[in-house]
Amino acid sequence: MTGCDRIVELRSDNSAGVSEEILDAVGRANSGGAAAYGADEWTERARRRVAEVFERSDVSVFPVVSGTAANAIALATLCPPWGAVLCHDSAHVLQSECAATSMFSGGATIRGIPGDGWKTTPDAVEAAFRTTRWGDPHHSQPTVLSLTNPTDMGTVYSPDEIAALAETAATRGLRVHLDGARLANAIVTLGCSPAEVTWRAGVDVVSLGATKNGALSTDAIVSFDRTLDEQLTFRLKRAGHVPSKMRFQSAQIEAYLTDDLWLRLAGAANRTARALADGLGHLGVQLAATPQANMVFANIAAATADVIEAAGVHFHRAGGPGTVRFVTSFATTDEDITLALSRVAAAVRA
Amino acid sequence: MTGCDRIVELRSDNSAGVSEEILDAVGRANSGGAAAYGADEWTERARRRVAEVFERSDVSVFPVVSGTAANAIALATLCPPWGAVLCHDSAHVLQSECAATSMFSGGATIRGIPGDGWKTTPDAVEAAFRTTRWGDPHHSQPTVLSLTNPTDMGTVYSPDEIAALAETAATRGLRVHLDGARLANAIVTLGCSPAEVTWRAGVDVVSLGATKNGALSTDAIVSFDRTLDEQLTFRLKRAGHVPSKMRFQSAQIEAYLTDDLWLRLAGAANRTARALADGLGHLGVQLAATPQANMVFANIAAATADVIEAAGVHFHRAGGPGTVRFVTSFATTDEDITLALSRVAAAVRA
Amino acid sequence: MTGCDRIVELRSDNSAGVSEEILDAVGRANSGGAAAYGADEWTERARRRVAEVFERSDVSVFPVVSGTAANAIALATLCPPWGAVLCHDSAHVLQSECAATSMFSGGATIRGIPGDGWKTTPDAVEAAFRTTRWGDPHHSQPTVLSLTNPTDMGTVYSPDEIAALAETAATRGLRVHLDGARLANAIVTLGCSPAEVTWRAGVDVVSLGATKNGALSTDAIVSFDRTLDEQLTFRLKRAGHVPSKMRFQSAQIEAYLTDDLWLRLAGAANRTARALADGLGHLGVQLAATPQANMVFANIAAATADVIEAAGVHFHRAGGPGTVRFVTSFATTDEDITLALSRVAAAVRA
Amino acid sequence: MTGCDRIVELRSDNSAGVSEEILDAVGRANSGGAAAYGADEWTERARRRVAEVFERSDVSVFPVVSGTAANAIALATLCPPWGAVLCHDSAHVLQSECAATSMFSGGATIRGIPGDGWKTTPDAVEAAFRTTRWGDPHHSQPTVLSLTNPTDMGTVYSPDEIAALAETAATRGLRVHLDGARLANAIVTLGCSPAEVTWRAGVDVVSLGATKNGALSTDAIVSFDRTLDEQLTFRLKRAGHVPSKMRFQSAQIEAYLTDDLWLRLAGAANRTARALADGLGHLGVQLAATPQANMVFANIAAATADVIEAAGVHFHRAGGPGTVRFVTSFATTDEDITLALSRVAAAVRA
Repeated sequence: MTGCDRIVELRSDNSAGVSEEILDAVGRANSGGAAAYGADEWTERARRRVAEVFERSDVSVFPVVSGTAANAIALATLCPPWGAVLCHDSAHVLQSECAATSMFSGGATIRGIPGDGWKTTPDAVEAAFRTTRWGDPHHSQPTVLSLTNPTDMGTVYSPDEIAALAETAATRGLRVHLDGARLANAIVTLGCSPAEVTWRAGVDVVSLGATKNGALSTDAIVSFDRTLDEQLTFRLKRAGHVPSKMRFQSAQIEAYLTDDLWLRLAGAANRTARALADGLGHLGVQLAATPQANMVFANIAAATADVIEAAGVHFHRAGGPGTVRFVTSFATTDEDITLALSRVAAAVRA
Repeated sequence: MTGCDRIVELRSDNSAGVSEEILDAVGRANSGGAAAYGADEWTERARRRVAEVFERSDVSVFPVVSGTAANAIALATLCPPWGAVLCHDSAHVLQSECAATSMFSGGATIRGIPGDGWKTTPDAVEAAFRTTRWGDPHHSQPTVLSLTNPTDMGTVYSPDEIAALAETAATRGLRVHLDGARLANAIVTLGCSPAEVTWRAGVDVVSLGATKNGALSTDAIVSFDRTLDEQLTFRLKRAGHVPSKMRFQSAQIEAYLTDDLWLRLAGAANRTARALADGLGHLGVQLAATPQANMVFANIAAATADVIEAAGVHFHRAGGPGTVRFVTSFATTDEDITLALSRVAAAVRA
Repeated sequence: MTGCDRIVELRSDNSAGVSEEILDAVGRANSGGAAAYGADEWTERARRRVAEVFERSDVSVFPVVSGTAANAIALATLCPPWGAVLCHDSAHVLQSECAATSMFSGGATIRGIPGDGWKTTPDAVEAAFRTTRWGDPHHSQPTVLSLTNPTDMGTVYSPDEIAALAETAATRGLRVHLDGARLANAIVTLGCSPAEVTWRAGVDVVSLGATKNGALSTDAIVSFDRTLDEQLTFRLKRAGHVPSKMRFQSAQIEAYLTDDLWLRLAGAANRTARALADGLGHLGVQLAATPQANMVFANIAAATADVIEAAGVHFHRAGGPGTVRFVTSFATTDEDITLALSRVAAAVRA
Repeated sequence: MTGCDRIVELRSDNSAGVSEEILDAVGRANSGGAAAYGADEWTERARRRVAEVFERSDVSVFPVVSGTAANAIALATLCPPWGAVLCHDSAHVLQSECAATSMFSGGATIRGIPGDGWKTTPDAVEAAFRTTRWGDPHHSQPTVLSLTNPTDMGTVYSPDEIAALAETAATRGLRVHLDGARLANAIVTLGCSPAEVTWRAGVDVVSLGATKNGALSTDAIVSFDRTLDEQLTFRLKRAGHVPSKMRFQSAQIEAYLTDDLWLRLAGAANRTARALADGLGHLGVQLAATPQANMVFANIAAATADVIEAAGVHFHRAGGPGTVRFVTSFATTDEDITLALSRVAAAVRA
């Protein structure tokens, strides 16, 4: 495909394929027999790798095939049927999982709370606490705070922000869940350790995304509370989320966390997103937000967007704060960005 | 590994890896961007391939990652919360899915009914009907008949048997679900077409297994009733069973059903199972049942079983009618069987 | 009890006892044997009385013991597990039922929408529609609009307002549920017929309250759509909401709707509420809203409220828009109001 | 009504009305205002009365309106979603509650086990344990043993039998639930104390029936484990099972347990059942079981049953072991039995 008819894929990091390293790991795991359902050496190695990377030996790791599975089953484990999960109004668990958490928990509720920059704050959590009738069985009781980092709009919580939120949550006994569908992108931006932005900041359970960052339908629930193991084990099984050939998922997680692969892949995506944002700025396109991860939201008139799309740049409309959302991935190249910008430039000039 | 220390893996067909053809298909699907969540060309091609193979154009195909997911979500779609799924006392959906169907359906019940050879019969279904208080809201109402073919014990329903059961089910308006976790093995044994043993015999929805027969955590719900599409779509999503990179599952299904790969893989497993059964018979080992698929159940004293295991043959104990269960897979070789039999022979002689 | 130590009970209409006419009806129903579970003459008569009063012969009536049961089971019947119930941000089903609807529906969500005067509007419904990703399985699909009339804050929807809302709902295929925990109070205020404010305005199912208006733990689901009967029958039974001696509830519903008893009881409550509001106004107490039913919300300083309470007037704090909520009931007398106002006057003067 | 056209009501103890003492208690509770939702003096007195009668101060009492509510919510509290309730094959919770327990628990399963005389045994429990794959997440884990006393077939467990079952249950950590829909009838037969047949024998939670024995749609969950209080409180509320005017239920429970009223009512029913059984025996009618409570099962040819029914005796067909079930209640009189027997005699002679 020459430059002129090549598609630049910026719809979603889900639209990318699988990173070479991860596909190789899948191939290597295909070596003879292994115990089914996770009682295999790859799963044990994946657990050890998570323990190393998160600097925490008493960690539990449950591979799953989607972020929705990770979020909903983690939250159902933390939240009784009469509980409420607090999260930002824009959170994926509230907006884009069709109430999976309510189903798996037996009817828990998900309660959106506000916050600028698509991030919630201790003040917003406290305001929610004040309008809660604690102990009143007529009223769903907040029991979990769920944070998305980075948010679906590409903003990032710092370890200090998370710690402050977790502290506020703790005043009322809430557990803290982190939806880390793109956690690697946040860690790269923050330059912190995985531990700092999770359990050291007070997070109990993480939905560790890998799929959006180069894996093959593989994410994981990472729990820093071993007392949840039995619940997670049974809840996952009866959700159909214990693949019999789990080694092929575990091998991916191992590879993903080895030699900083996850950070390298996320770093590439963050870098091309920044290049795209800079380029759009130079072209006079108004950005809806400064990108902190791998998402760029821009305000582009519908007619102009049509021209860009027709020229072979794929993106989403109305996927967030601006009118147009571009998402880069590990697979996005500098050439992709150059090509995309040249097409945007042509459309803007027209 | 030389013959003398090589492990012969006969615990489960889940313990095998991925067939070469399917792993190649995964690799080929890793080519640039694609729409997420199934709106891709691989998924469309998989659907068309299913339509061809099952000789039915109005078919819906939903890839999932486990047989439990396929069964439980298919059944929840067919069964209202106050309904009952009838199945054989030994069925996987009753014995080995931790009531996943009850969870996904909002509290439906699974009611075991008897039958020789681990297969149920029209008479048993009618007996269940007679003890049902139809229309009485105090009593769960049978609404689905679920058949497992082959059964978990390796016996096979013929198209005529399924048709007779479906006819009986229809007298009371029950829909028919087929748990086809090993459907290819049954089809090879029967020498019939996929259509004959499914929708032509009255089956409404099939859980089409591929994982146990060489795929990488990929099965599918195949529905012959398009009116179920909306339900299946929403139920799967909120179950976390719509992988964003679905093309990698769809590519497997396409490959699996192309050029009879599924039947070739299952045929190999059936053949080695028969060879194992024959060999065990010659050694004087009593078989608990004549194998019709890829499972061999034998009565072997615990002490003898210990010796066989120590010699490097993996199998399950108490996994069915006999004391010992051997399962062959597409990956089982003639050499594996020869080796296994020689070790059994040595143990039996001892 | 003399005037000076007599308690004036204005906490809730739930705090009142049972009206004499209704208690008499219970006594009269206690005459020999009757078929259990609703197959009795009282239940049939209650159905016929509902049909007359609502001017609609094809009506179904299911007695229940609480408004939460009526609301949650009616909504679970109208809303698939992946659906969303739209209601005002202040609605009882959202704020005061601990997500009962989510539980009974298998995980449906309840989505608050705004509106002045604690009432929602066609504009607010349309705004909710615009932020809905219709047909997207990641996103809960609005399927029911639930209106509370009167609202928990004592404001009332007119038949025209309901009709406009139902019309808007219908543009997207939503069904309409009416939480009529205090429906009689609204009808008295509106001076309309029961039919006008319900099915003629587009309401499909009503939670018909009686408990707050003189009954003994008896409300009812009134459905104008007979196709829901099977669902309601089974859902109620497995919720434990089919009392075996249903005649004692049905007899209450019959009495409640006979000779306008429900409107007489509600009229008395509305009248004393208005007298209380007028009296408070004369005393210079600021009302948070003009009462349209039997609730009066006032802004009274905490210290003053303490004095009033100590003087023997029972009320709720922070139960709505003002700092203090008074609720009158069928049992509230003119003397109660005079006494309450004199105590408020004394406290205000102090 | 003269003797010749008077109906003798023996269909069910649910077909009887309300005992005078209980109806009086309801009337007496109708005295002015009271706090809603159970924070009233009647509910506190009911709790104290239960504590006295069961000789146990740390007891929790939750009034509900049906036995299904009591059973299903108690069991959902004791059983995690992945658990199994073990009970006799004939148990009401398995046969006659439309899987309410599965719904309220989020998908727990109810597993029938055998036993002569419609009672299960330690051996049957142990046999169920042996076929359980403990700790295997593919398999529902038994967590509760539910016993019905008397059984739905009118047989009675002794305190020793219950203690032996509870001991067996405890070997695997199961909790014990007692469905006491007709507990008073069992206690009268056994001549033991309420404590002996419940918590002293190892029962954790009792569904205390009153409705079938003279109450007005009032039963109660009686829990001997205070750590369950929070769960029960929230689960009941979101099930719609916390009537706002709870005092009218609590007043019934108080009256029911005062001055042995419950035992007097049950004693009368047991006595007329025995008289009926004796009379039937003298007439040569074959009894299917010796009645130990207030149920009589007899084998009567359909044609003869038709004649008896036409003569004005109401009963159930196919309601248990025999072809015909008669149930007496507190309201059944000696004259009823005489009349019924004379009609049976006439039919038998014909």
